[in-house]
Amino acid sequence: MKKIRACIIGASGYTGAELIRILYRHENVEIKALAADRNAGNEMYDIYQHFITANLPKVVKLSEINMSDIDVVFCCLPHGTTQEVIKNLPESVKVIDLSADFRLFDAKLYEQWYGHPHKAVDLQKQVVYGLCEINGEQIKQARIVANPGCYPTSASLPLVPLLQKKAIEHDGIIIDSKSGVTGAGRAEKLANLYCEVNEGFKAYGICNHRHMPEIEQTLSEAAGLGVQVHFTPQLVPMNRGILSTIYVKLSKGLSANDIRTILQDRYKDSPFAHVLPQGKFPSTRDVYGTNSCIMAIAEGRNAESAVIVSVIDNLCKGASGQAVQNMNLMFGLPQTTALQDLPLFP
Amino acid sequence: MKKIRACIIGASGYTGAELIRILYRHENVEIKALAADRNAGNEMYDIYQHFITANLPKVVKLSEINMSDIDVVFCCLPHGTTQEVIKNLPESVKVIDLSADFRLFDAKLYEQWYGHPHKAVDLQKQVVYGLCEINGEQIKQARIVANPGCYPTSASLPLVPLLQKKAIEHDGIIIDSKSGVTGAGRAEKLANLYCEVNEGFKAYGICNHRHMPEIEQTLSEAAGLGVQVHFTPQLVPMNRGILSTIYVKLSKGLSANDIRTILQDRYKDSPFAHVLPQGKFPSTRDVYGTNSCIMAIAEGRNAESAVIVSVIDNLCKGASGQAVQNMNLMFGLPQTTALQDLPLFP
Amino acid sequence: MKKIRACIIGASGYTGAELIRILYRHENVEIKALAADRNAGNEMYDIYQHFITANLPKVVKLSEINMSDIDVVFCCLPHGTTQEVIKNLPESVKVIDLSADFRLFDAKLYEQWYGHPHKAVDLQKQVVYGLCEINGEQIKQARIVANPGCYPTSASLPLVPLLQKKAIEHDGIIIDSKSGVTGAGRAEKLANLYCEVNEGFKAYGICNHRHMPEIEQTLSEAAGLGVQVHFTPQLVPMNRGILSTIYVKLSKGLSANDIRTILQDRYKDSPFAHVLPQGKFPSTRDVYGTNSCIMAIAEGRNAESAVIVSVIDNLCKGASGQAVQNMNLMFGLPQTTALQDLPLFP
Amino acid sequence: MKKIRACIIGASGYTGAELIRILYRHENVEIKALAADRNAGNEMYDIYQHFITANLPKVVKLSEINMSDIDVVFCCLPHGTTQEVIKNLPESVKVIDLSADFRLFDAKLYEQWYGHPHKAVDLQKQVVYGLCEINGEQIKQARIVANPGCYPTSASLPLVPLLQKKAIEHDGIIIDSKSGVTGAGRAEKLANLYCEVNEGFKAYGICNHRHMPEIEQTLSEAAGLGVQVHFTPQLVPMNRGILSTIYVKLSKGLSANDIRTILQDRYKDSPFAHVLPQGKFPSTRDVYGTNSCIMAIAEGRNAESAVIVSVIDNLCKGASGQAVQNMNLMFGLPQTTALQDLPLFP
Repeated sequence: MKKIRACIIGASGYTGAELIRILYRHENVEIKALAADRNAGNEMYDIYQHFITANLPKVVKLSEINMSDIDVVFCCLPHGTTQEVIKNLPESVKVIDLSADFRLFDAKLYEQWYGHPHKAVDLQKQVVYGLCEINGEQIKQARIVANPGCYPTSASLPLVPLLQKKAIEHDGIIIDSKSGVTGAGRAEKLANLYCEVNEGFKAYGICNHRHMPEIEQTLSEAAGLGVQVHFTPQLVPMNRGILSTIYVKLSKGLSANDIRTILQDRYKDSPFAHVLPQGKFPSTRDVYGTNSCIMAIAEGRNAESAVIVSVIDNLCKGASGQAVQNMNLMFGLPQTTALQDLPLFP
Repeated sequence: MKKIRACIIGASGYTGAELIRILYRHENVEIKALAADRNAGNEMYDIYQHFITANLPKVVKLSEINMSDIDVVFCCLPHGTTQEVIKNLPESVKVIDLSADFRLFDAKLYEQWYGHPHKAVDLQKQVVYGLCEINGEQIKQARIVANPGCYPTSASLPLVPLLQKKAIEHDGIIIDSKSGVTGAGRAEKLANLYCEVNEGFKAYGICNHRHMPEIEQTLSEAAGLGVQVHFTPQLVPMNRGILSTIYVKLSKGLSANDIRTILQDRYKDSPFAHVLPQGKFPSTRDVYGTNSCIMAIAEGRNAESAVIVSVIDNLCKGASGQAVQNMNLMFGLPQTTALQDLPLFP
Repeated sequence: MKKIRACIIGASGYTGAELIRILYRHENVEIKALAADRNAGNEMYDIYQHFITANLPKVVKLSEINMSDIDVVFCCLPHGTTQEVIKNLPESVKVIDLSADFRLFDAKLYEQWYGHPHKAVDLQKQVVYGLCEINGEQIKQARIVANPGCYPTSASLPLVPLLQKKAIEHDGIIIDSKSGVTGAGRAEKLANLYCEVNEGFKAYGICNHRHMPEIEQTLSEAAGLGVQVHFTPQLVPMNRGILSTIYVKLSKGLSANDIRTILQDRYKDSPFAHVLPQGKFPSTRDVYGTNSCIMAIAEGRNAESAVIVSVIDNLCKGASGQAVQNMNLMFGLPQTTALQDLPLFP
Repeated sequence: MKKIRACIIGASGYTGAELIRILYRHENVEIKALAADRNAGNEMYDIYQHFITANLPKVVKLSEINMSDIDVVFCCLPHGTTQEVIKNLPESVKVIDLSADFRLFDAKLYEQWYGHPHKAVDLQKQVVYGLCEINGEQIKQARIVANPGCYPTSASLPLVPLLQKKAIEHDGIIIDSKSGVTGAGRAEKLANLYCEVNEGFKAYGICNHRHMPEIEQTLSEAAGLGVQVHFTPQLVPMNRGILSTIYVKLSKGLSANDIRTILQDRYKDSPFAHVLPQGKFPSTRDVYGTNSCIMAIAEGRNAESAVIVSVIDNLCKGASGQAVQNMNLMFGLPQTTALQDLPLFP
């Protein structure tokens, strides 16, 4: 098989680096071009010393890349800059966008949360939301995939099947999420400094984070009506991992065990979505460096409610791993290719 | 003033060590005796090397202590062992118990959650629950104080005034709490090992933790009716700190701003309970090593709900600091004595 | 090609778990049996929850394994227990021992440092010391390989070529090493607890650690005369990684640049040993989860001395990764098989 | 007693914040003014949220401070900016400079290491090097004190008495130091980001760090001849703490025990310098948040050499704590005032 020629735009961020880690071992992919305008002319090991042992192309400006040599583009640019970049790519190229620029399908909602008008409204219509376990069939046909946010992936994988089955009530859902610090990216700002983060825990953007409308869009589609969620993102002093604690009210007559069974049935053939048996709960460590999502369900304080715990690696299943999973689907490969490693522990 | 002669029973655990740190600088206290049966005969610096520069009494067996030389006992024994120890102390000694043995006032509830009958039911009637900001007046008169649990302290300080004022609905309260690892004590077990904890986040005891009935007891008393809460304790890879994220439904006609005002009024003269202005949220770092509780309120997803964030240092305000605050109250001292230091940061 | 049937004895420790991680992705290996006497009857995910998604054999007692079904045994037992276990294995089985039991070739030296007589002196004569970059040819012929210690690997890879070439003086070598906490294993003891280790740094076993004679043995062989080193092991609050800072005196007429060139020449074809150019220094992060050793050389305070920095992942190149590299060599496979992944960062 | 009116210039860095923490509890000090030009107009809690509970003056520009109201200035400005600032302070003000600007007494050496000519050569002559345990008597008389660097403090406290007594050889001293991340300050740069630092260890500035000439200056004065040291600074993923591992050759006829005795004698009346008995070694945790320096001595590989381990809290004894100790000495106060707290552990 001819190798897929991949290009990463925005290779200098953490999601870019994680993509390189995964694609480098992908037997069907050649990393053909790496773009990062501010870092153009450098080797990747100048940007990330841990690539010193890797054989990678030199970093170039986006404008220097001949897109006719490229089969797939991974776009890792900051939010707000991607719509125009992707608009200008040739039709021959498949695109997986890791930014938030194409995740919200309602242009008004986009403008409300991102502060500027959507710049590629027509293109948006072609886009498929790349939550692989839910939209796998459409992804296979897609040219452009909007790779889901990290928090939304952790919340939607357990909630979508339950809302589709009407197993839980659609209102009053509370998603209390905790993320490792890579979720904040590689920006050189005070809040990201080691000494500010280490030995502390804090909440930010309570019910006011851009991933909230993204989650609501996915859940509303699943429920067939408008769903609103309380969503709190929080910062854990660790590099990788998201754990979402989700509080739901059960539909009449159903128990926590029932909804566990629903999820187990739904994901029984999934290579990446796992549901733990009663009494077991996941740690983010259980998915460190992997593309897995592990879920568990406990009874709430009373029999009418349940608490769902869901973990992913925010950089992998929450970003670059799912991006490669999307690529695998789009190119007809087994979706697990290059994504089968066991977690790194400890 | 004659110094208060203090004795710590169970000095070898983390709460014992934290008590020593605080009492050592207390101008009105002499650390007279340290008991730890398994470590009897050792110096404290054999148990904790960081005490190498301190001048402390040798560790002895409890039975070796002459209680007529003691004015106050801090009891830091494991849960389940304290009831009989305290029963046997002379009336002349005031007692602050940091275990859970006297926190639940309903002996049946105690038995249900702790798995054995209460062994000092009569004594229980004398006990005051030592949540200083709420029960300050009773504490001043008490001979025995049950020092509150760490999670309950973080949850009750914001919730009690709101329930007393009927500013929030008493049902459906969700308390999603995150704790540093000192909360698990100094036990030599797998789950406490560095390599198991570091770089991970996990939930444990979902809606099934012994602090849940303790919280409910306090909130029910505040509300004047039975309150049930969904409570999830979680483990953060850091030494100290608890952050509780609390989801509440507002009483009709009230806003998030209203309940902030209620809390600000309630705590405006408190040296330890602080309520942040709108738009500010605390980190556990803001209370590192201190006896403070800092609270903040955000709007929920809709105007009928709010999210409360509350932070404490679990070892200090959540245990030994509050214990000294209780002692200060019981002995007629300013409650801030030895507790006024600013947080250690970074 | 028929798969190599591998057995891990002592699968429940960190090196056992790391072996599973690597062998699970090895295209030429089948993990045939996992032994851990105390954990016999369990699944690996009962011992390490992160294996919940893996398809692995159940853990059994060593005595339950039919060794005629096994081609290679990885022995991960504690020091002192391995000599008799390996003595009893059939000749048909190749053995890679990750304990220290066969690393010291002088039985008296072994007894002096390990406190009991060597129990398999005859077997010792067959053993090859598995420092792959140095002893590759002998390893290819070996039946039993003593997998080097983590500190010795980090120190010997830079020092052996320099001593062989007489480029540095053989006396006065100082090896100041720093290790992540996995180096201490999974023992449930106070010194390994999260709250004892986190936010601290300490030395232990100064010039009195069992890896010192192991290093000296390797260096003496390289130098052709007795070499003594000052060796200080130290503990860093992180899971993985060793960095050794090595102070050497240069042979007359040679500069720091000269010895860098010697190492670069020596390792120019090595897939795992890398020497950085002047002015660059490695972090342990650069080898996180990989089998690489990265070295760098700086001038000392004067032109007659140099400082060498060397990093490895203590669990991978320092233990299980090198063990698989040894297996690859022993079975005629490319030594990089299953060991080519890029580091996990961040 | 009238309170000492203190001013901190450069209050927004970590050493400024640590000074506030210590001075806030100092019974003889009033924090009168806080200057930080870029942050002028803010409250300290806008710069550091953990000051939310403190009652502190608003931050102003340096030019706004009336220096006739000030008794002592702590200067926490970046290196290179302090010489002119201090030159312009009135004679009535005592000065403790936490930068490196007045630490090197040879203006040429200063220029060589700091890259620009010394701008206050005359003033330099008045300056006393504020290593309290060594220069206590001169400090009492000083108007301007150059507060020592963190690494130099950790290295000089054990080495100065030994060189003064000629108990160790003055050449070939190796100082391998490891520091927490606060040592790098609060600069918003890539190398200081949480995800870059966490889970890693690295060396930087090998035998090329500005603290090396500072150490050599102090040791040369102690030895009465020119001393050169090999000095390697390294970064540990933790907030606070320095541990220096120091390799020395013993003078003829002396043993490791002898030099331990020399240090014990020298520091037997010191409130902050402690020497551990044989077989005990300090962790940086033992001095967390305190002004102590704890030292220990081990035999090296042979009887002619020794290994010294020394720990301090880099922000406290290594910076702001020692600065307050200097102030105490300069104002005739007990040097321990405000510096007596036990370490925070865990």
